[in-house]
Parts: sequence; C-alpha cells; structure tokens
Amino acid sequence: MAVKLHLDTEFCSMTIAPSSSDKPRILDGKRTANAITAEVREAVEREGLTPGLAVVLVGDDPASQVYVRNKGRRAKACGFLSRQYDLPATTTQAELLALVESLNGDSKIHGILVQLPLPAQIDADCVIQAIAPDKDVDGFHYVNVGRLVTGAIGAALLPCTPKGVMHLIEQALGPDLSGKRAVVIGRSNIVGKPMASLLLAHNATVTVIHSRTPSPAEICRQADIVVAAVGVPGLVTAEWVKPGAVVIDVGINRVEDDDGSAQLVGDVDFEVVAPLASAITPVPGGVGPMTIAMLMHNTLQAARRQVAVST
Amino acid sequence: MAVKLHLDTEFCSMTIAPSSSDKPRILDGKRTANAITAEVREAVEREGLTPGLAVVLVGDDPASQVYVRNKGRRAKACGFLSRQYDLPATTTQAELLALVESLNGDSKIHGILVQLPLPAQIDADCVIQAIAPDKDVDGFHYVNVGRLVTGAIGAALLPCTPKGVMHLIEQALGPDLSGKRAVVIGRSNIVGKPMASLLLAHNATVTVIHSRTPSPAEICRQADIVVAAVGVPGLVTAEWVKPGAVVIDVGINRVEDDDGSAQLVGDVDFEVVAPLASAITPVPGGVGPMTIAMLMHNTLQAARRQVAVST
Repeated sequence: MAVKLHLDTEFCSMTIAPSSSDKPRILDGKRTANAITAEVREAVEREGLTPGLAVVLVGDDPASQVYVRNKGRRAKACGFLSRQYDLPATTTQAELLALVESLNGDSKIHGILVQLPLPAQIDADCVIQAIAPDKDVDGFHYVNVGRLVTGAIGAALLPCTPKGVMHLIEQALGPDLSGKRAVVIGRSNIVGKPMASLLLAHNATVTVIHSRTPSPAEICRQADIVVAAVGVPGLVTAEWVKPGAVVIDVGINRVEDDDGSAQLVGDVDFEVVAPLASAITPVPGGVGPMTIAMLMHNTLQAARRQVAVST
Repeated sequence: MAVKLHLDTEFCSMTIAPSSSDKPRILDGKRTANAITAEVREAVEREGLTPGLAVVLVGDDPASQVYVRNKGRRAKACGFLSRQYDLPATTTQAELLALVESLNGDSKIHGILVQLPLPAQIDADCVIQAIAPDKDVDGFHYVNVGRLVTGAIGAALLPCTPKGVMHLIEQALGPDLSGKRAVVIGRSNIVGKPMASLLLAHNATVTVIHSRTPSPAEICRQADIVVAAVGVPGLVTAEWVKPGAVVIDVGINRVEDDDGSAQLVGDVDFEVVAPLASAITPVPGGVGPMTIAMLMHNTLQAARRQVAVST
C-alpha cells in the first residue's frame, strides 16, 4: 500500500525550473512538450535507436488528417521512422485487422496507433485489442489499462493525455501526492479513468465526479488538484475551486463568438479561476501539446523495451 | 457517459426480499451466497453444462488448504467438474507455468484458479498473466481488469469479492447508484481498486481513501455507501459514518481476546456503526460467503461463454 511511484524515471534530466513566485503560476505545456521532444530526440541519437511509429488513418475525416499529419511530423523531428497508412473509408474490419497483424510482426515498427474515430463498419475496440500491447503507444489496450490500474506502471504504456497531465502536476507539486486530494471531472476511458488511476498511484486521494454526481462544485472545492476532462466549456468556475489548488484543464472546446468566429476554450473558466489557483494550465498551450509529446515518449519507451527483449 | 450497467443480468430471478422496516437492515451474505449457489446449480442442470474448475495449490499453507478445499466442495455442490492440483512447495515457476498452459488448453476446464500466496521462488504476477483471460475466474488478469475499468463488464470476469459486495449493495439500493457518493477504504488490487471501478460503472461518485489520506473520517462521513477493505480491526467508527449510509465490511481480521481465544472481526466497529447505518454487513456472515459464491458464478459464466464460442 502507498507505494511511491514516479511516473517517468527515464526523464530525470528533464526538469523545468519553477517560475517566480507570482501567482498564479502558468503551467506551460507547449514549452514542456518541446523540452520532452528535444529529450526524446537526444535519447534517440545517444542510444543509436530508430523507434518506428506507424499511424493508421481510415477514411478522410479532416480533423483526423490534421492529427495524423502532426504526429508523423513530430515523429520525424524526433528521429523516428514514421509511417502513415491511409486506408479508404470503405476499409473492412478484416482488412484493418490484417494490417495491424502485419505491423505487430514488423520488427522496424515499435509503436502502432490507429487514429480514432473509425468508420461505423469497424469495431474500434476489437481493433485496439488486436494491437500487440507492447506496441500500443496510445495505452488503450486492456493489458496496458490493467498494468496501470494494478500499479505495474513500469511495464505499461500509459495513455498519452493523462501521462502528460501527470507530468504537469509533478512540475507543480512533485511526484508524491500523499496528503493531497484530487478531483477528476469526467470518467472517459481515454482521460478521466486512467487519470484517476495515475493520481492514486502517486498517492493522491482521488474522487471521480461525472454527470450523475450531486453537488459537483462542492466536492470539487475540497480538492488540492483539479483535472477537468469533460468537454463542457467553462464548467469549472470560481465556486468549484479551493484557493491554492492546482487546476489542469484537459478540455479543448470549439465555441463560436457572436461574430461567427471560432475559438478554443477549456472546461475551466480561466479568467475567474486563475487568480484562485496556485498553478493552472491555459487552453490552448497547456495539456494539448503534452499529448503528442507523450506519444513520442511512449514510442521511445516501446522501442527501448522491444530492442532490449530482442537482443 | 453515465451508462447504466447492471452487474449481473444473468441473475434476474434471484432477488432477496427486503427485510422489515427495522433498522439497521442486516445484509445477510450467507443467505444470499446460498441462494446464488442454488441458482448456479439449477442453471447447470437446466442448461446441461458441466463447468470445470481447476484449483491449483502450491505448498502446504494451512489457510490456503482450507480455502482450496472449500472451493472444491462448493464446486462439486454446484454440479461442476472440480479438479484440485496439489504441487509441492519446491515447484518451479516453469513447472507451474506448464500446468497453467495445459489447463488453458483443456476443453473440460473453464475456470483456473491459482491459490495465492505462492512460494517466494514463483513470480505470482507472471503466473496470473499466463492464465487464459477467459478462464481467469479470479478476475485478476490484466485483460479482465481492463475490461472492468473500461466498462466492458459484459465480457469481463469480475474479481469475486467486489462482485459479491456489489451484489449486496444492489440488495440495499438497486443497481443504479446515480447521485450516491461512495467511499472505498483501501486500494488493493484485489478489492479496493476493482470495487471503485464497479461502483463508478454503477454511476456512483467514488472516492478511494487509503493510508496517505488526510482526514479519512471526515471524507468517509460524506458517503452514502462505505466499503471498508483495509484490514484494520474496527477502524470505521461512528464518526466515519453518515446516518443512513450503507456500510459494507470486507475486513476479516483475527483478533485475540484477553483470554487468548481468537475471534473474527471486521474493519467496521459493528456495535457503534450498525445503529447509524441503513444497511450493514456482519462479520462473519457478510461479504465472506459472497466471495466463494461469486467464484462459482464466474465459473458458470466462463463455461457458458466458452461453450458458446466452441459450438
């Protein structure tokens, strides 16, 4: 019980100096993500590794195309082998599974990412579970979920967004969250639930609140750490936040202004919450950039482990 | 989000009539467990199935011998094929893995349970992960953990104790815990963590408290449902419990009286908490008997699924 787990012992060298004592401290995800990417690139050169990342895109969803392109670019910038597979929207499940199977057996590829969402004729869960767990750089396979939940974090590939959030929390509070209360708003499989598991592994006392929670603001106001990951613009207002709390905003919501122009806003009402918080992430420029940086780090980890096993 | 999940749709017929309006209502685990066992036996006869349960015991720990014997007896009483494998304390990991492998391939065996703890020369986690997930009737394999956590409960084999606890909670409150706050005391992989996942799947707002939690009594006192699973005799006293809460005591602690005689007590101080609770489990006779009943139910589920796949 109460085992102290450090998220990422492979990153001892990467620390971000605390900002001055001004309040609130802005947790700069873009800067941190760039530092992680630089560390990954240096590790690749130093270790003489060529991590291989395969990203599979089915269909022509414009947002997915942007995400996939960005992942490929970042992989190349890290010195990885980057492969993109563009499959037509009519791809069958059997065809996609055959590709995954061949990538599982490809010794040049250490990380496999199937971009979601998938077309309706494909069972996304079945495809994810077909990825070899040690190449599952999204951290969505049941085996990686199980490793995370049971505390076998050293063997897991962690889902990228919670891993990035944890990194930012560590900047503010260090790795041991003993005595801290954390509230995670939202219970998705991609963010909320793994976030709760990670916080618990770091000794926080964790509550998950969601759409069926009574008095969520009152519960949230007890927290030293708030992670909002629910996709409701500006949900977290001043009355949700205890003075001095660390507030992490995972929401990226596109809202239209009166003039029809769109802007990105988080789940946190930054203007009113920031003055209360001891540290807070902005949107954009907070959690968002961390996700792709952690994907690179996961791919590096996966490559290291696979090379260690095969040699 | 907020999908309503019923723990166990295969047990529609098994309901226990509420007791009279006397307070507190005692949740009778022994009676419920007997009813479940009877249901399993009837299902076996009705469906013409012979679920096969293999229990593996390594070494001669007296407590483990008792547990294993009881499981075998109960399996036979359910009409199962029951096999017990007694291996010497000197068994190597390779030998145990070879047995597990052969049981994985044995079409007469639908459930495999390796009794814990294992001798020091054996890596228990490695052995558990070697069990075919669909035969993992303890629900400890990463794949079953992942299924539970992500809400794929219909495909999971759930760990027996949390499954039994959930059954008792449903007796008191029904399956939908929307609007209820739950506190799980303890974060073990066998009880605390899967319990939190199950409660969340049933729409409760869940907090896990543990040895690093500040003011645990104060947090616990906010809960409508308390599950104590920490192994500290009498930890939960009146000041931990909100009047009207449902209190489930998973602890089974052997304490010695002044005269040297031993008795079993729970993590809850029953005498002072019972008058506050709307429903409460006794120790013994509460959660304890439910665990083995749920093992029988898991084995039945595993057999049904394996037979469905093979025919």
